Amino acid sequence: MAALSTTLPLTRDSVLQAHKVIQPHVHRTPVVTNQTLSQLASTPRSPQDLEGTRFAGRTPAKPVLRLWFKCENLQRIGAFKVRGAFYALHRLSEEPGWVEGGGKEKGVVTHSSGNHAQALALAARENGIAAHIVMPQISIPAKIAGTKGYGANVIFSGSTSVEREAVTERVIAETGARLVPPYDHPDIMLGQGTLGLELQEQVERSIAEGKKNKEQKKRGLDAVIAPCGGGGMLSGVALSCEGTGIRVFGAEPSYQGADDAKRGYESGERVPTVSSLTVADGLRTPVGLHPWSVIYERRLVSGMFSVTDEEILRAMRLVYERMKMVVEPSACVPLAVALFDEDFRSLAEREGGEEGWDLGIVFSGGNVAVEALGKLLAGDK
Amino acid sequence: MAALSTTLPLTRDSVLQAHKVIQPHVHRTPVVTNQTLSQLASTPRSPQDLEGTRFAGRTPAKPVLRLWFKCENLQRIGAFKVRGAFYALHRLSEEPGWVEGGGKEKGVVTHSSGNHAQALALAARENGIAAHIVMPQISIPAKIAGTKGYGANVIFSGSTSVEREAVTERVIAETGARLVPPYDHPDIMLGQGTLGLELQEQVERSIAEGKKNKEQKKRGLDAVIAPCGGGGMLSGVALSCEGTGIRVFGAEPSYQGADDAKRGYESGERVPTVSSLTVADGLRTPVGLHPWSVIYERRLVSGMFSVTDEEILRAMRLVYERMKMVVEPSACVPLAVALFDEDFRSLAEREGGEEGWDLGIVFSGGNVAVEALGKLLAGDK
Repeated sequence: MAALSTTLPLTRDSVLQAHKVIQPHVHRTPVVTNQTLSQLASTPRSPQDLEGTRFAGRTPAKPVLRLWFKCENLQRIGAFKVRGAFYALHRLSEEPGWVEGGGKEKGVVTHSSGNHAQALALAARENGIAAHIVMPQISIPAKIAGTKGYGANVIFSGSTSVEREAVTERVIAETGARLVPPYDHPDIMLGQGTLGLELQEQVERSIAEGKKNKEQKKRGLDAVIAPCGGGGMLSGVALSCEGTGIRVFGAEPSYQGADDAKRGYESGERVPTVSSLTVADGLRTPVGLHPWSVIYERRLVSGMFSVTDEEILRAMRLVYERMKMVVEPSACVPLAVALFDEDFRSLAEREGGEEGWDLGIVFSGGNVAVEALGKLLAGDK
Repeated sequence: MAALSTTLPLTRDSVLQAHKVIQPHVHRTPVVTNQTLSQLASTPRSPQDLEGTRFAGRTPAKPVLRLWFKCENLQRIGAFKVRGAFYALHRLSEEPGWVEGGGKEKGVVTHSSGNHAQALALAARENGIAAHIVMPQISIPAKIAGTKGYGANVIFSGSTSVEREAVTERVIAETGARLVPPYDHPDIMLGQGTLGLELQEQVERSIAEGKKNKEQKKRGLDAVIAPCGGGGMLSGVALSCEGTGIRVFGAEPSYQGADDAKRGYESGERVPTVSSLTVADGLRTPVGLHPWSVIYERRLVSGMFSVTDEEILRAMRLVYERMKMVVEPSACVPLAVALFDEDFRSLAEREGGEEGWDLGIVFSGGNVAVEALGKLLAGDK
């Protein structure tokens, strides 16, 4: 990773600059709408549906929500993570002396069994940089094969974070490789935030093209909701919306305390550790320090919401059945909030009023073990 | 169904007319490409991969294939069947005396547990026509609920075709409803064929937009391959391509003789019955008489190809993993042919030469029981 002293300030302008850099290397993923799901989100839930939930006894909210899905499941490697990886490697290559000191040959290293591993492997290969990826021995074979397929040097470790970090340290000592963390770095945040810029433009263009007359005043998004694991993407999206008037919200799973950012946001203190086996396996990490400074300290995120694993899987099933899209559980958390979280829905009703909200929803990724799909999708009742 | 004496001639012009009629009622579904899959289709299979298959010992073919997927899985009700249903009901409404004789109230009837049931129910509702759908008692609850959800009157029957037809006859006797068969009627064929027109235009536009200079002579599709069950859609697509120079091919499952159209095409005699439990459950029917006249007698289809259930599921898995699209097994049969059928691949190599083929592939539908996905997608080895 480039030294912190060299990073750009955390502003919307810096996200715009990052976008210029990575645009040739990533897909401008489509933004799609879905009539059935927007209708469902705009229909009050029945009192029976709320029974037995944390919202039992409440009067169901009546928001008007037009949903716009940013399909990063159709991104290269199947997730938004390539954006941050490409930008981080660009910045690293510009760090004075790094290339000249043999940086490309020494390479980069990370420990991850998920989307960040493949993203870094791909970005490194396309930049002619060696990549060392530390993966737990128990990682599923498809992920190992995928990472190796991008030409990375895969090194196995135990599965605890202590074991993984120890192996990573050893790789750094032996190779001189530079660590590229998955989310807790300004360059990563700025890279991921580029999806927020595209989403804004794509929705504006769609609304403009659909306008019946010039009198219509609606211009673009009112709000965006994105998943929050380490917070790299959520904070980047928040930066991309700074000064636009678009409100940004974060979505987390609540299972076994995976809603660390929400709890931190409400208590005023970041929760530094998480140990959860939520089905949203990309969101099992605590929010990082740099993302926290944007999400909470600068209040660029207006609120955090959390949903149960059951709600996440219900949302996921709707995406498969109604949108015919392959998404991973983590990607469905924001939609679950929009459909099932009465706190969020009341807020949207109150603030959106009769005209309602154009709400951007980030589909963060589509990498799911297909063998597990049947169980995941049947297990929602 | 409108009386046969009132149907338009089976020509490309008639497909164009059908398109004008149904355009306001159906989606112009997207056509997408996928670099990984086009690359895979353009890579010769290894001799080892051919071992133990019907192609063992052959020199692997080396076709160059640029794949264009017509996404009817994103169509209304999740399959192309709405095209034929809307067109059939339009023609029926124009039949002299039908509306005046109380036709809309008497309604329409069909027996189907699949996509045709939901397509007819939807088209009937939007035309203010009553719909009676005969479904086997053992149909999966989601399909029954789906059909009822479109406001149809669902009547249960036994699951053999004799039992289903008996109940259908009874409904006709009791209500005066008109039968709308799933594929064996010119109006249905012309309606389904409209997807072929769109595919042609969409690919032409994409190629034109991507051209580096005006010297490039490539204009559009070289060939299209579509699934064949009853043959309504395949024959309609063939009509849509008549006189354009685009070659049309049909794709079937081979399991338990489901490749009836291929066998008929090769022997010169239509095979009137099929009894197969192929995983491509939309293609378990014999090709109908009217489709046969277009596919075989007029030779508007240039060849039929068949693949094993294992090959179909391998293709399906690639679509989920690489394209992040939800498709049903039947929809994956043409892709399986393009990837795994050495007869087809040799033909494409021979005729496409170095420049290769732009090949349209019809993704016919995306209605799959999500609970079954894990098993389907794991069972390919």
